[in-house]
Amino acid sequence: MRILKTSLFLLSILLFACKSQHVDNKTGSNPELVFPKGNKITNNNFTGNVWLHPLIENDSINQNGVGSVTFEPGARTKWHLHPSGQILLAISGTGYYQEKGSPLRILQKGDAVKCPPNLPHWHGAAPHDHFVQVAITGREGGPVVWLDPVTDAEYNQESR
Amino acid sequence: MRILKTSLFLLSILLFACKSQHVDNKTGSNPELVFPKGNKITNNNFTGNVWLHPLIENDSINQNGVGSVTFEPGARTKWHLHPSGQILLAISGTGYYQEKGSPLRILQKGDAVKCPPNLPHWHGAAPHDHFVQVAITGREGGPVVWLDPVTDAEYNQESR
Repeated sequence: MRILKTSLFLLSILLFACKSQHVDNKTGSNPELVFPKGNKITNNNFTGNVWLHPLIENDSINQNGVGSVTFEPGARTKWHLHPSGQILLAISGTGYYQEKGSPLRILQKGDAVKCPPNLPHWHGAAPHDHFVQVAITGREGGPVVWLDPVTDAEYNQESR
Repeated sequence: MRILKTSLFLLSILLFACKSQHVDNKTGSNPELVFPKGNKITNNNFTGNVWLHPLIENDSINQNGVGSVTFEPGARTKWHLHPSGQILLAISGTGYYQEKGSPLRILQKGDAVKCPPNLPHWHGAAPHDHFVQVAITGREGGPVVWLDPVTDAEYNQESR
């Protein structure tokens, strides 16, 4: 009987351990990072907590700046535009993306978005999940132009 | 006794299941993919098996083409150059990268490389590991120029 109890005890520990690991893998709450999280962004162009890890600085020869951006659940950019456009790659979690005049899009790991030059847009994390993106931003036309904050009504709209 | 045997049987199954999951997570031999592997490249500009998953096609407004490239262990490009340069992001595995006249570099997950325009270079996987990279290639100056294959002596040199 003691052996039986011991076995059942071990079984329950293992079940718990397996379940914990499973949850980590599935929810993305503890994802295996591709890039370091970087430093928290301290300017007021974002709602919520956002981190930036710069990967490539633009220069006179290659005008692309590249960085990994991590949004906590619910965090997002202001509306903004890039004079030379932007490419986003979804690395982990669940992202929101919207261009002015178009419905909200959900971004999942592996998705890629090309945002045209000078088109106002915003992006961030879903309410229930973080979001990590790589942003590839051409600087030849000038820096980002920041616009209005994304309201809660805009953030909570239905996606297409 | 039957209950005991059943418990031990379940225990061994769970142990095996947990162990398998653990190995998958740690070794990277079956990494969680960020991007689909894509299709095997069939041209002769590569040594070994290489797969390409296109993410963004260049157009007249945004000249960057972006793709995820997967090299099997030992696989590599020929020497080549890009008239508008290239940015590489190391996503998983172990990569090799060399510019003409410089030592071989080892690339690990999270590394980023900016290759200048018109500078011959090659990249690929280490002998013992796969390598997944995101390649960001400006097309405004024209397409890639392919050069000589990377010899085994070049491939097997010491890294810096």
